[in-house]
Amino acid sequence: MKPLNDRGIRLLVIGSEITQGFVNDTNTRFICSEMFNLGISVKEIITIPDNLTLIKKTIKSLLKKGDFLITTGGLGPTDDDLTIDALCSFLKVKPVSVKACEKRVQKLFFSKNQGNINRQRILSQCRIPAGAEGLPNTSGLAPGVFLRIPGIISLPGFPEEIKSIWPHVLKKITCDLKQSFLSHSFNIWGVPESIIYESILIPKEVQYGNHSLPWGNNFFLKSSSENKIILDSIARKIEKFFQPHIIDNPLNQWFEYLKTNQVTFSTIESCTGGLAAKLITDFPGASDVYPGSIVTYDNRIKTNLVNVNPVTISQFGAVSRQTACEMARGGSDKFNTDITISITGIAGPAGGSPEKPVGTVYFGIYNRKLNRLYSGHGFFPFGRERFRNAAVYSIYLSLFQLYIFYKDDSLWLNSPQGKNFNRENVD
Amino acid sequence: MKPLNDRGIRLLVIGSEITQGFVNDTNTRFICSEMFNLGISVKEIITIPDNLTLIKKTIKSLLKKGDFLITTGGLGPTDDDLTIDALCSFLKVKPVSVKACEKRVQKLFFSKNQGNINRQRILSQCRIPAGAEGLPNTSGLAPGVFLRIPGIISLPGFPEEIKSIWPHVLKKITCDLKQSFLSHSFNIWGVPESIIYESILIPKEVQYGNHSLPWGNNFFLKSSSENKIILDSIARKIEKFFQPHIIDNPLNQWFEYLKTNQVTFSTIESCTGGLAAKLITDFPGASDVYPGSIVTYDNRIKTNLVNVNPVTISQFGAVSRQTACEMARGGSDKFNTDITISITGIAGPAGGSPEKPVGTVYFGIYNRKLNRLYSGHGFFPFGRERFRNAAVYSIYLSLFQLYIFYKDDSLWLNSPQGKNFNRENVD
Repeated sequence: MKPLNDRGIRLLVIGSEITQGFVNDTNTRFICSEMFNLGISVKEIITIPDNLTLIKKTIKSLLKKGDFLITTGGLGPTDDDLTIDALCSFLKVKPVSVKACEKRVQKLFFSKNQGNINRQRILSQCRIPAGAEGLPNTSGLAPGVFLRIPGIISLPGFPEEIKSIWPHVLKKITCDLKQSFLSHSFNIWGVPESIIYESILIPKEVQYGNHSLPWGNNFFLKSSSENKIILDSIARKIEKFFQPHIIDNPLNQWFEYLKTNQVTFSTIESCTGGLAAKLITDFPGASDVYPGSIVTYDNRIKTNLVNVNPVTISQFGAVSRQTACEMARGGSDKFNTDITISITGIAGPAGGSPEKPVGTVYFGIYNRKLNRLYSGHGFFPFGRERFRNAAVYSIYLSLFQLYIFYKDDSLWLNSPQGKNFNRENVD
Repeated sequence: MKPLNDRGIRLLVIGSEITQGFVNDTNTRFICSEMFNLGISVKEIITIPDNLTLIKKTIKSLLKKGDFLITTGGLGPTDDDLTIDALCSFLKVKPVSVKACEKRVQKLFFSKNQGNINRQRILSQCRIPAGAEGLPNTSGLAPGVFLRIPGIISLPGFPEEIKSIWPHVLKKITCDLKQSFLSHSFNIWGVPESIIYESILIPKEVQYGNHSLPWGNNFFLKSSSENKIILDSIARKIEKFFQPHIIDNPLNQWFEYLKTNQVTFSTIESCTGGLAAKLITDFPGASDVYPGSIVTYDNRIKTNLVNVNPVTISQFGAVSRQTACEMARGGSDKFNTDITISITGIAGPAGGSPEKPVGTVYFGIYNRKLNRLYSGHGFFPFGRERFRNAAVYSIYLSLFQLYIFYKDDSLWLNSPQGKNFNRENVD
């Protein structure tokens, strides 16, 4: 076995649905991100189809490399769920049935009058290799499998099931693997990638990298434990230099702000078609501060439901500063919320013009208590899907900047961040 | 080299951003799905961090297996873009610069007054190994790399760049690899996985499998070219047996139905918080048939904006058949649309009760022209995210069943598919 602090993870993803391109594998990101936060290296990820011989061979060759093995997929009731068979064959043991799992199956499937069910097939997912420990799965049936020696955890393929087993995985992993690196990670808004690298001199003992977010950049540092002092000092420099541009996510910050200050919020969307609403209602408890949203896709709805003047639309267009302002004010009347935003733009592929090409978007922000109205604009010509994401994150970032970062609207409007916004006259 | 019809693809994904869990790798699905459609097997996918020695070693061991190698990632200007160096070192050749790429760099970067740019670094992405062919990248700078012998294509990591190079990849791949299997694939609704397998006897020459969709199952068949006759006959049997349960996606069908018949549609959502609206407005041109949506997250908004009687809410609850019905009717008045749906449920994690646990959802469907109202219910206790997806796809599938599949509401309500719905009295 490798020295403990060299030992990392190798991940084996089992599933023809992935190698045949039917589904996106999102488990890999979840598992790798958890490992990064624990300071455990993921050295390799191998994805293979559901094939018994191949699974067994790959398990063997991966374990030879001396790291801990996590497998996903292939635990279930169908013919192509082969992970347990492969493990048993590799370990030269027989499968045994987990009693707690059998009880759940009994309760969920066999208690009702379900004549057509193939009992044997359903019960087959309760199996684990003899000598292994079953890890409870509260989202599905098949238990996870843990084998301290040679160091294997097998998980199902469904993301929710992996998450339900995950607390047990963490307990096992943190007992059996030592942290092999330290890391710091920062989400930074309003600072281009190149500026980050030009501002901070990073010594060669420290690895670093970045990737873009819909509203900024993620930047990370990484080094082995013995470089803790150097690493922490670089991290402090970055924090000092870029704080308070370092935030988790403008949407999280905004939702926290609303809850903490009991500020109510509503959204009037056109081109983004409900995405701003969907993202804010992803937070459990959103209903305390977010009464709702209107998607005014049709111009008549802008007029009928949020009182946009039809003359405004005919004179300036549905995608205009003026319409955005009236949407925000009209929406605020409907929802009686403290802050109301509006988004109107051209997602494409059709609908663009030389003056207002596809990618153009206008925003409104109306603050009811202060009777203040702001208009803003953006240009995100990246295709329909990316346009909608960029537009929604851009307005949430602006709300963060105005109400949480600058707090004062003159400061905001004069900042590089607020330059795409104007304060409007309100009668 | 392997016999041509045995030769498939091995995919090497290069990027620490993936092994560290910062991003989801969506290129794998794109490439695997394209290969499946071409009838070319993807035998293995290996994902590794940006490390020169490791990249070189992995390229070598993958090529040994005799298949064609596609790599993604590691082509670019930064220090961790190492694919070209690894290829050159493995092939024992020097890098050469692609002239067409240099010209683009010149035009994009060096024509303007951009003092601070590191020319050497930017030009480094024009390199390919000597003897290789550069594949034009119209979305980015780094060209793709093609080496007929030993059979390598290297692509950048950005999905848009891969897609821009893809037509060239297809030309090379289809010259150098033979189709090694034939396939058929079906999306089927309303038929449990087990019934599919029990209904059709599949001979052992034919491989098969399925994966679940939010509204049904995808089922595929696969076999080598010499079994074409058997494979096609099984496919015809499945089509005959399950047609018209075979559809692309209920949402696509529903949108087509709305457009073709000029039927207008609106959505009133509570627990799904804008997701039903977001999905229908994903279609370009949605505004022709979809004026908009109201998200009535707060009970007062249900009352004030879509005229739900407050007595209904206090007597039966916001999550009830009665409230769903009033939401659909009230929403229809607001939007004046032919068909209006409503969704009200408990996404969780909080808000459940013994009578109405987390996962409970009620639906309403109101047809304005016929003055017909239906209520329905579902139970999807799978966590907040999956609940919301399941609830939205469930109502879109029901709309497909009622208006496109059965066309007659008595047939629908008496079918296994319509059993969770009732026709309501309307005054």
